[in-house]
Amino acid sequence: MTATEVEIRSGAYYDSIVLMQLQRSLVALPGVLDAGVIMGTDANKDILVQSDLMSPQVQAAVADDLVIVVKGKDKTSARSAIEKVDELLTVRRSSGIDEEYRPKSLETAVKLLPDAQWVLISVPGRFAAGVARESLNLGKHVFIFSDNVSQEDEIELKRLAASKGLLVMGPDCGTAVVNGIGLGFANKVRTGPVGIVAASGTGLQQVSSRIHQFGSGVTQALGTGGRDLSESVNAITARQGLDLLSRDPDTKVVVLISKPPSPKVADDLVQAVRQSGKPSVLNFIGYSTPMHVLDNVHFATTFDETAEMAVMLSAEVVEPVRELDIGRFAAGQRYLRGLFSGGTLAYEALLILQNYLPAVYSNVPLNKEFRLEDSLISQADTIIDLGEDEFTVGRLHPMMDNELRIRQLEKEAKDPQVAIILLDVVLGYGAHPDPAGELAPVIARVKAEAEAAGRYLEVVAVVSGTDEDPQGLDGQIQQLEGAGAVVDTSNDASVRYVGRLLRALDPEKSRTGEELFKPVDLTQFKQPLAAINVGLESFTESLMSQQAQVIQVEWRPPASGNEKLMAILARMKSK
Amino acid sequence: MTATEVEIRSGAYYDSIVLMQLQRSLVALPGVLDAGVIMGTDANKDILVQSDLMSPQVQAAVADDLVIVVKGKDKTSARSAIEKVDELLTVRRSSGIDEEYRPKSLETAVKLLPDAQWVLISVPGRFAAGVARESLNLGKHVFIFSDNVSQEDEIELKRLAASKGLLVMGPDCGTAVVNGIGLGFANKVRTGPVGIVAASGTGLQQVSSRIHQFGSGVTQALGTGGRDLSESVNAITARQGLDLLSRDPDTKVVVLISKPPSPKVADDLVQAVRQSGKPSVLNFIGYSTPMHVLDNVHFATTFDETAEMAVMLSAEVVEPVRELDIGRFAAGQRYLRGLFSGGTLAYEALLILQNYLPAVYSNVPLNKEFRLEDSLISQADTIIDLGEDEFTVGRLHPMMDNELRIRQLEKEAKDPQVAIILLDVVLGYGAHPDPAGELAPVIARVKAEAEAAGRYLEVVAVVSGTDEDPQGLDGQIQQLEGAGAVVDTSNDASVRYVGRLLRALDPEKSRTGEELFKPVDLTQFKQPLAAINVGLESFTESLMSQQAQVIQVEWRPPASGNEKLMAILARMKSK
Repeated sequence: MTATEVEIRSGAYYDSIVLMQLQRSLVALPGVLDAGVIMGTDANKDILVQSDLMSPQVQAAVADDLVIVVKGKDKTSARSAIEKVDELLTVRRSSGIDEEYRPKSLETAVKLLPDAQWVLISVPGRFAAGVARESLNLGKHVFIFSDNVSQEDEIELKRLAASKGLLVMGPDCGTAVVNGIGLGFANKVRTGPVGIVAASGTGLQQVSSRIHQFGSGVTQALGTGGRDLSESVNAITARQGLDLLSRDPDTKVVVLISKPPSPKVADDLVQAVRQSGKPSVLNFIGYSTPMHVLDNVHFATTFDETAEMAVMLSAEVVEPVRELDIGRFAAGQRYLRGLFSGGTLAYEALLILQNYLPAVYSNVPLNKEFRLEDSLISQADTIIDLGEDEFTVGRLHPMMDNELRIRQLEKEAKDPQVAIILLDVVLGYGAHPDPAGELAPVIARVKAEAEAAGRYLEVVAVVSGTDEDPQGLDGQIQQLEGAGAVVDTSNDASVRYVGRLLRALDPEKSRTGEELFKPVDLTQFKQPLAAINVGLESFTESLMSQQAQVIQVEWRPPASGNEKLMAILARMKSK
Repeated sequence: MTATEVEIRSGAYYDSIVLMQLQRSLVALPGVLDAGVIMGTDANKDILVQSDLMSPQVQAAVADDLVIVVKGKDKTSARSAIEKVDELLTVRRSSGIDEEYRPKSLETAVKLLPDAQWVLISVPGRFAAGVARESLNLGKHVFIFSDNVSQEDEIELKRLAASKGLLVMGPDCGTAVVNGIGLGFANKVRTGPVGIVAASGTGLQQVSSRIHQFGSGVTQALGTGGRDLSESVNAITARQGLDLLSRDPDTKVVVLISKPPSPKVADDLVQAVRQSGKPSVLNFIGYSTPMHVLDNVHFATTFDETAEMAVMLSAEVVEPVRELDIGRFAAGQRYLRGLFSGGTLAYEALLILQNYLPAVYSNVPLNKEFRLEDSLISQADTIIDLGEDEFTVGRLHPMMDNELRIRQLEKEAKDPQVAIILLDVVLGYGAHPDPAGELAPVIARVKAEAEAAGRYLEVVAVVSGTDEDPQGLDGQIQQLEGAGAVVDTSNDASVRYVGRLLRALDPEKSRTGEELFKPVDLTQFKQPLAAINVGLESFTESLMSQQAQVIQVEWRPPASGNEKLMAILARMKSK
């Protein structure tokens, strides 16, 4: 008859590889049917229930207890397996790491490998913050693989690090690639033009693998830990990482991956990436954005799409963007007046401008707070849809009759605060036979009048039509350009140009977040990676296999894991 | 001294081109400084205020009044201009339309041009519904350019049309291209593979123009009117249009454009487009979607992007999609069990599956309503993240140790309702040296056991890694494929395959909306366009210039525009 034997060791510490090896060794013993070796947490006990290894004695164990359960084909087999535990624990070491000299402390390890920029930490969660704090105080970046670390500790560690120009990746940071060396779980990917910041471990791995599969590669792939983009941690590591990549000349394309952050953090990071100016791909997995592209920032929704976009952007010759010349405008010129005949073109313009301006007034506003009191009296930045029903009772549509628009244009052009007038010119059957012929002389005149008054008036015209339209596309464009208008056939492109120009004219429209941290030293960061590993030995083996310099610390919990004593030790050290 | 003279004519009807021409003729008279000719609505009176042509007499005018205001350099000039109004109104006709015989009624027009499939309506809004109803009863599709038509009328007209297999484009439909002929405002665009349905006039024009500029073209471009996608109209015309394009063999790519509809209507339309199976681009301008691609449906955010995507999709060889073979499964097999080691891979899977399944249970659900009571006991469709903190206290991460996952896999495989098991296999440094070596034998065994029990078990494995990883990508894939697993290196692609398979296995997961309408006859629709025009003569001129057959109706408001009499007439006609 089968029998189950249990042994519980209170306050014992073994790392999880040791526990796994012990469990496997026990199962391999003669007469053993199954075995469980766990720390006594509820989830782990649950697993024993699933495996039919539970008993009242095990149920009573607590998180700090090492629980060993063996089910044997009879009581003797189970008992004799349990008796072999100590023996198995002492012979378990079979790793290839040179064990001749393993420092017992971080400080000693740092003396042995002074070039180490990094400390990798994978000790149990409750000890990880202490090791990280010590590492930061020794001037090292830290990579915290451990989970079960409190958010308070995370915030404190990251603030400390930011003040020193150091990075804290994690806690619960699964992966990173620094100078071609993988930390934690990391794929071997080609060196290439894409730099990645990720709050998601396997997301980073999948994206970097796909980038490699598509034939490209990465400069750096920086993990932040899954909580970094929460409002309380405030994306400290992500901001540092983005800053680092924006300064790195080898990084041509920046990728940011995270589960959906809070809207405030998301917005801050979008602005940060936007201001870096580098082509970028953001994947806030499942976070909806109303636009897919915003200046240099491209939004992706899946890892595949993220990788594809990054590779495409790194291969693409960057399209020339219309240059902004704000020196021509007089002081005080800063507003847009858009006079549209096309309702949906006006709508798209409002939508795009949302990403450039805090408020655009309109007779058809996106947000009714910005509704014009009088549809023909503009306020600040304004877009008027002259094709709205209110204007077309007993009156031709403005695509057929420009009279109302021309009157309004003349009025707007006289306003000394107006910098830009935006018009759509819709060609095709049914529309006015020569809209440019009516508009161009007026544009030329109002521009000349503004110039005479010491101002510069930018008139931007979107010509929507084809070369086969009755009006002729090229002729319409030439007339408008001849009058000094800036002409494009794309509403999207025209409105984005207007948005950028308005932001340049009124810097308040694009406030920058303040530099909250001391920048990470890029030159030192890009030196060949050397690291000190505290915790899982497999990470040391992994670094060795990648030809990186590494030292394994023979770590044991301070004060044998007694938390009161640990606190006293920590206070003594910090003095 | 300047003087302003006013004349008000009550209940007079002139079409808006006549009013525009009158105004321009008045301004051209000697001694006239400015003139206004409007129907007395508030918005129009506002325009007179802007032009400094307002007076108490004009202020008192109502919407039905024709208001004529002339500002002259003196009283004599103004007065003599006003006196010329009648003369100007009689000589105003200068169009090229053959006026020898113009029918005075729709019925006569239909007899003259029996092949006409269309009636174009651009009479003042309050008369448009009546003309449209008459047209539908004569078996014609209608294109209503007029705005200021009530929503009640729109709903009634569209329901009537749908029951007859006819289309109502509009009210306030700016544009359409039917069989290469532009209606209303429309650009001359090449015939090509893209079919468009749009609730946005200039949006449709911009997108079709851009498609032409990019070298492609359109089959049909169907306007619906701006309110069609509202919840009350319920997208009747859009659904009819999508149905028409899905049946049209010349349409290879379908485009749908609209301002953001209600989420319910949006969802219905996405499902409709999805079920058509044709590559499609949806632009619900400014409507955020958490995914950019959903099966055959691609979401765009701007007109430019819409046109680009449509052209790219029409040029692309369609990627082969993994075929679904549901005949292998036993009755009752319909659930997914996903066992992930990668937290963000699990998260992306949940996110993608949202678009395929009504509910996915998890220990890390997107919606806490679907949280598993016990993280290791699956319910219906389930995804478990085995890398969550709850499982990693004193236990190796599942990317290093597959033991817990294998136990769970064996348990799930025994569940007769389970059809698919989804696994991620993450390679790279730090991870297990040979995960496929551990998983493949188990996969082979559980598949064989299922087969022995008369079931078929699909095991789908996402292998995330590179060919340079220590485990070797190809070898890992071969081991898993050797065990009968379906393997892909993309999480995205694997999860979408799983989603499609689950929907096929349980048709309730993809209910189709019922056919609410009689389908439009495609063969008749694609005959060369012939039309009857009621309203703006310029639309007749435009059709003539496009070599389409057209008849202009010499329309006058029924009962001289008296609404009571009109209602009586309508009742008499409908008997």
